[in-house]
Amino acid sequence: MKIKIYDTTLRDGSQAEGISFSLEDKLRIAARLDRFGIDYIEGGWPYSNPKDITFFERIRETPLKHARVAAFGSTRRARLSAEDDPNLRMLVASGAPVITIFGKSWDLHVIEALRVTREQNLEMIADSVRFLKAHAEEVIYDAEHFFDGYRSDPEYALATLTAAAEAGADCLVLCDTNGGSLPNQVAEAIQAVRDHVRVPIGIHAHNDSETAVANSIVAVQFGAVHVQGTMNGIGERCGNANLCSVIPSLELKLGLETIGRERLRELTEVSHFIDEVANLTPNDRQPFVGRSAFAHKGGVHADAVLKLGSTYEHLAPETVGNKRKILVSELAGGSAVRHKAEQFGVDLTKDSPITRAILDQVVRLENKGYSYEGAEGSLELLIRKAQGEYEKTFDLISFRVIIEKRAGDEEPITEATLKLRVNGEVAHTVAEGDGPVHALDNAMRKALQQFFPHLAHMRLTDFKVRVVNVREGTAAKVRVLVETTDAQETWNTVGVSTNIIEASWQALVDAVDYAMMRERRPRNGN
Amino acid sequence: MKIKIYDTTLRDGSQAEGISFSLEDKLRIAARLDRFGIDYIEGGWPYSNPKDITFFERIRETPLKHARVAAFGSTRRARLSAEDDPNLRMLVASGAPVITIFGKSWDLHVIEALRVTREQNLEMIADSVRFLKAHAEEVIYDAEHFFDGYRSDPEYALATLTAAAEAGADCLVLCDTNGGSLPNQVAEAIQAVRDHVRVPIGIHAHNDSETAVANSIVAVQFGAVHVQGTMNGIGERCGNANLCSVIPSLELKLGLETIGRERLRELTEVSHFIDEVANLTPNDRQPFVGRSAFAHKGGVHADAVLKLGSTYEHLAPETVGNKRKILVSELAGGSAVRHKAEQFGVDLTKDSPITRAILDQVVRLENKGYSYEGAEGSLELLIRKAQGEYEKTFDLISFRVIIEKRAGDEEPITEATLKLRVNGEVAHTVAEGDGPVHALDNAMRKALQQFFPHLAHMRLTDFKVRVVNVREGTAAKVRVLVETTDAQETWNTVGVSTNIIEASWQALVDAVDYAMMRERRPRNGN
Repeated sequence: MKIKIYDTTLRDGSQAEGISFSLEDKLRIAARLDRFGIDYIEGGWPYSNPKDITFFERIRETPLKHARVAAFGSTRRARLSAEDDPNLRMLVASGAPVITIFGKSWDLHVIEALRVTREQNLEMIADSVRFLKAHAEEVIYDAEHFFDGYRSDPEYALATLTAAAEAGADCLVLCDTNGGSLPNQVAEAIQAVRDHVRVPIGIHAHNDSETAVANSIVAVQFGAVHVQGTMNGIGERCGNANLCSVIPSLELKLGLETIGRERLRELTEVSHFIDEVANLTPNDRQPFVGRSAFAHKGGVHADAVLKLGSTYEHLAPETVGNKRKILVSELAGGSAVRHKAEQFGVDLTKDSPITRAILDQVVRLENKGYSYEGAEGSLELLIRKAQGEYEKTFDLISFRVIIEKRAGDEEPITEATLKLRVNGEVAHTVAEGDGPVHALDNAMRKALQQFFPHLAHMRLTDFKVRVVNVREGTAAKVRVLVETTDAQETWNTVGVSTNIIEASWQALVDAVDYAMMRERRPRNGN
Repeated sequence: MKIKIYDTTLRDGSQAEGISFSLEDKLRIAARLDRFGIDYIEGGWPYSNPKDITFFERIRETPLKHARVAAFGSTRRARLSAEDDPNLRMLVASGAPVITIFGKSWDLHVIEALRVTREQNLEMIADSVRFLKAHAEEVIYDAEHFFDGYRSDPEYALATLTAAAEAGADCLVLCDTNGGSLPNQVAEAIQAVRDHVRVPIGIHAHNDSETAVANSIVAVQFGAVHVQGTMNGIGERCGNANLCSVIPSLELKLGLETIGRERLRELTEVSHFIDEVANLTPNDRQPFVGRSAFAHKGGVHADAVLKLGSTYEHLAPETVGNKRKILVSELAGGSAVRHKAEQFGVDLTKDSPITRAILDQVVRLENKGYSYEGAEGSLELLIRKAQGEYEKTFDLISFRVIIEKRAGDEEPITEATLKLRVNGEVAHTVAEGDGPVHALDNAMRKALQQFFPHLAHMRLTDFKVRVVNVREGTAAKVRVLVETTDAQETWNTVGVSTNIIEASWQALVDAVDYAMMRERRPRNGN
């Protein structure tokens, strides 16, 4: 049986504290979720956010392959006809094939928030759905606060659904807007709804009681065929139902069809991609996709699980694209290094002295604050250096970065001077930049391009700074991750120092070394 | 009805990746949980961890007031009598009034892991419980992998419980060891167990399916009277059932008695205390206790919730010791600004021209990349500036930061020179630092302390950098958040620029301005 997955990361997810997606972010996320097999992607609320209007324009230019795009809005206002309501008109103007509107199910909200009569609210729902249904392929009705409404006045809550259903809504989504419902309440309400209307039912849960995933699963078990949620559960307050947990449970535990088992293997990757774009630190403990989700801490569990996974794993990690992790085990360390080296096309045996040397160095550097999980470029360099395959691109003679600001300047002036020895010659360059790292990068490229013209295609595409030890303020260590791209490939490198300029410099040097190494020897596929 | 809460943060929680409690940590946690009203505190597994033996010795010296201390271990080995089993003997020697042992319920484990017959396993369970029951006040039997076992062979899984019950176990705890069970499976199994034995039933859930809290609640609804879990859900892989969510749901939503409503008001504080001791960053999105758990961002939501909390809050935040938080952002409206101003002791009406001016400015600055959600110090300054309450501390004449590295240096040398006009005088200082921001901060403090001695107590305690628009590499804007502390207070300020030094400078200036403003006018409570 097919359950439709409706992602609202771009709309409800962007309500989360600290989350702010740029237009480009939204388009990238939509494209990735489309390839992942998500059925609906809610792009935004055009009336409340002008940025969202552009999103719908842009997404029409590069249509998605599988997913249907949904625009979100509310029922018409009390004093306007549906035709005259600017919110509804903008929904139609968005050109989205699917329009989702929310309306009130809870008498408290009808009277206190909308300040209309219960009857007027029913008309607002019916009019709005009917109007939209004439202009869009599919209209989804989100019954806001449905479960609270049902607890307060079941008859009225059901009447709001009837209004939407009779006006032509294609799906009625029961929203636990405040996130306070428990699974039994969800089950009971859904049963009542199914006895009352024949339109397909959906669920939209929030996690305020830490039961959003369970509520979504229970809803499906009681007959819902449409599940709304966000990737990694991003959302306001405590977040929305986490699709990264709902999808694998529906697919692997209940045997239902969602995105399909083949695509489910991309789950961990997609989850990390979303965190990356949202600039969130991935939660290691996150079910299914977290780095620790299949981690076993030494002893009995680790031994048992290596013999037979199901002894301490609820499912095989590779079914969701994750990996088993054996902690505090030198043996596991050795095979991990070997496994990694193999990805880079380097043959190592698990117990060779080189493998041990690499492992020792990784442990030593990670203790200093380096992290190679997001810096595979630096890790490959480290492995190839240990193999004796590394040739130095240049020697640093000196650099100096000056940042200077005078009264009345909007921005400081930043200048980097750099002296390198390359192939026995001295290159001495100076460059400006928007900031110190940019200036240093410009000076370095200026120095090296004369010797290695192919480096001209390299450009920095991302730059991340993380304080490694926050308790010491600016004197703490920072870890800089740099992402570099050329026409063919993208690679990530890392640097660590108490000085952000030094940390950035290390990452920049690795980025260049990586480009040089790749030029010298063609890589295997990744 | 009373539900017993059994905390295993000190034992199962310490299995989490990255968690390591010292003996003193454990004693502090036990004392705090005791005052909080937890019924059982599992202190450790004496046989597997010598540190745990000392814990039981120490806890006997300073007995707890309410909680009973439990020692944890396994059933006897196949080839030893209970009397001769060192693991069981150490449990007795711990002197703990409660002893909890786990045994196997799943035929797979009996045969593959223990390598004994199904019958032998039943004898091991019965012998162990009987032996311990003769030496301890209370014996709790943890049925490991019960739900997997029940799915594999229900009859045998129930037989293991019978063995424990007939040998005198006071409580049979059904463990979802692999965390793979869904609420309906828990409900079904508990019903079967209740039909089968008359001993009180408990639940021990893991969060691998993100349903541990729901599973615990459902278990209680189907008759369990004892719930095991950890504070903040700390535990191996994806963690255990989070007692910080289970307790308030049982108490406030199901109306059951656990720690009592009075003590529930300490929930947020206790949760943060545990994170502090465990050296974990509190999860802002954590249900009930997280900093964002009652945060409202959208204009509509914020307006409504200020009128009537229950419109967008599943319960009153103060019932769990938490606070409502209105976020001021591009999505927020006038009432959020007014509410914030009120916290700062400034009276504003929702629609006054000043409120509108502040809101416009927030929107304009947020479009530039500023964010005030984590920078309330800068927001308060902005509001007071709009009110005309701001006095400039100094004028910048110029600054220059030089970062210089020469071949062979481990780290660059960083020097900041700064020229300010303060009270009509010119202050010209120079300072070094671990990095450019540190140097600039040192130079600024050097310049200002001669005029304002109280600034000597200020120090930076945290420093965060976020790239605001990642698609443009080092030329992208960065947002810097700085946390500053003195003896009395901590405040956060923000700066944004394409240049990280300029962004840091803005945040540093706000930090100083904030300190000066507070000195001039005493603040209201927060």
